Amino acid sequence: MISRIAILGTGLLGTSVGLALRAAGYKGSIVGWNRSAEGGQIALQRGAIDSLATDPIEAARAAEVTVIAVPIYATLDLMEELSLELGGDHLVTDVGSTKLKVTQAGMEHFNQMACAAFLPGHPMAGKERGGADLAAGDLFRGTVWLFTDAPEAVRSKRALELIKDWRSLVAAMGAKTLDLDAARHDELVAWVSHLPQFTATALSALLEEEVGNAPELKEVGGRALREMTRLGASPFSMWRDIAHTNTEAIERALLALEQRLAYLRENLRTPGLRDEFERANKFRRE
Amino acid sequence: MISRIAILGTGLLGTSVGLALRAAGYKGSIVGWNRSAEGGQIALQRGAIDSLATDPIEAARAAEVTVIAVPIYATLDLMEELSLELGGDHLVTDVGSTKLKVTQAGMEHFNQMACAAFLPGHPMAGKERGGADLAAGDLFRGTVWLFTDAPEAVRSKRALELIKDWRSLVAAMGAKTLDLDAARHDELVAWVSHLPQFTATALSALLEEEVGNAPELKEVGGRALREMTRLGASPFSMWRDIAHTNTEAIERALLALEQRLAYLRENLRTPGLRDEFERANKFRRE
Repeated sequence: MISRIAILGTGLLGTSVGLALRAAGYKGSIVGWNRSAEGGQIALQRGAIDSLATDPIEAARAAEVTVIAVPIYATLDLMEELSLELGGDHLVTDVGSTKLKVTQAGMEHFNQMACAAFLPGHPMAGKERGGADLAAGDLFRGTVWLFTDAPEAVRSKRALELIKDWRSLVAAMGAKTLDLDAARHDELVAWVSHLPQFTATALSALLEEEVGNAPELKEVGGRALREMTRLGASPFSMWRDIAHTNTEAIERALLALEQRLAYLRENLRTPGLRDEFERANKFRRE
Repeated sequence: MISRIAILGTGLLGTSVGLALRAAGYKGSIVGWNRSAEGGQIALQRGAIDSLATDPIEAARAAEVTVIAVPIYATLDLMEELSLELGGDHLVTDVGSTKLKVTQAGMEHFNQMACAAFLPGHPMAGKERGGADLAAGDLFRGTVWLFTDAPEAVRSKRALELIKDWRSLVAAMGAKTLDLDAARHDELVAWVSHLPQFTATALSALLEEEVGNAPELKEVGGRALREMTRLGASPFSMWRDIAHTNTEAIERALLALEQRLAYLRENLRTPGLRDEFERANKFRRE
C-alpha cells in the first residue's frame, strides 16, 4: 500500500485531495508544496498535509506517489523536472482539466523502464473560486475521476502496484473512475465542462454591462439567474491554461452554441421553439 | 382586511400562493379553480385552497381579491370575462411573466370608476417544472414580487384598500415588492429571466445532440453541467406565451449573447479573454 504521498500545489484541488485522503482513512504521510507559502500554510493548518516542503522536487523524491495540482503549463514544467529526478519506484499523477498535452508529455518523459510512471488524471470536481480555504474533504464524493492513461506505457511491477493503489484511493475518496482516450477526453470536456463555463462567463459579462450598475435589478432574476451566472465568478487564472490547451474543441463548442441560440432567436414564434424545448427536456430526463 | 380570495389556476404558482397565504397567517377563505380538475384536487388536498369552484367567474364574483395564475394568453381571456362581471369592490391581480400586454389590458378593461381594479403582478419565483405537486409555501420567500401598475388608473377608496392589503399579504409571504413601468419590466426580465432560460434550453438541446446517447458522459460534467442545464427541463407550455409576448426584447438579448460568445471564441488566446472573465467576475461580486 502507498505510505508516502506528495501534493504539489495546495490550492482548492490539492488541499481537497489531502483532506479527502484523510477522510478515506489513508494513514501514510502527506507532504505538501505550494508556490506561495500562504496557501501551503492553510493546507497545513487544515490538516490536508502533515508538513510543508520548500522544494517540490525534494518533496516528490521522498514520496512514492506525487500528485501535481497546479495549472496545466506549470504541470508540464514540473513534469519535466520530476522526470529527471524520479526513478521506477515512483508514480506521478495530476489533476489537470485538459489531458492531451499532459498525456503526451507523460509518454515523452515518463513510462519507460527505470523511469517514474505517469498516470494522467482529472477529477470532475471544483468550485467557482479556488484556494485552500474552500477545499473540502468531500469534494470528490459522487463525482467522476477521469484517467487518460496511454496503453503503450511500459511499467515496472512496482509502478503497476502504485497505479492500482492510487486508483483504489481515488475510489475511497468517493469518486467513480472512468478511463478515456486523451483526445476524446479533451473533446468531451469541451462540451460538458468548458462550454458551460464559457457560457456562464459570457452571460455574466453581458449582464454586467446591461444591469450591473443596478444591484436591485440583479436580485430580480432570482434563483435562475444566480445559478446560470454562478460560474461567472470563476477567475481567469483557473481557465487561461484550459483555453490555451483545448482551443479548437472549445471553439467548435462555442460556435455550435452560437448557432443554436440564433436558431432559437429566429424561431420564437414558430413550432421550432417547441422542438428545441423538447430536445432540451430530453437531455434532462433521467 | 381581505377575507375572501379566489385563485384562478392552481398550478405551481397558484397553489404556492395559497400555501404561502396560509403560512403567512391569512385567515380568510380561499376558493380555487383550475382548468383540469386533477390539478385543482391536488391544491385542495394540500390545503392551498378551501374549496374548488367549477366556474372561474363565479369563484371571482364571491371573492374580494382574484389572483389569476394561468399562462399569459389565458390571463388576457379571463381578464376580459372578469371585467364584465366584477364591480368596483373587487381587485383582480395576476402573476404572469410578461407585463406589457396584461397591463394594457388592465387599463382597457379595468381601473375605471365602478369597474374592478386590476393590479399587474409578477413574482420572480418558479421551478423548472410546473404543477400543484411541486408548489411550496416558501416559494416566494426572499424573492422579488414585481408590480407594473399604471399610474393613470382611477380607483375607488375600496380598491385602494384592497391593493394596499394585497401588497401587505405579498410582503407577508416573504417577497420584497418592487414597482416598475410595464415596458421596462419586459425589457428587464428579457435579460435577467428569459435570456437565462433560453440559454439553458439551447445548451441542453445542443448537448442532447452531442452526448445525449451516452448517459455516462452526462455524469462527467458534474455540478457545473447540472446547474447550467437544470432549466433545460422547463416545459414549452410554460414558455410559449412568454416568447410570443416579449419577442423583440428576447431577440435582442439572444443576439447580444451570440455576439458575446463569438467574441470569447475569437479571443481564447488573447488578452480579451482575461477582460471578459473580469467583467463576469464583477457581475458576481456583491
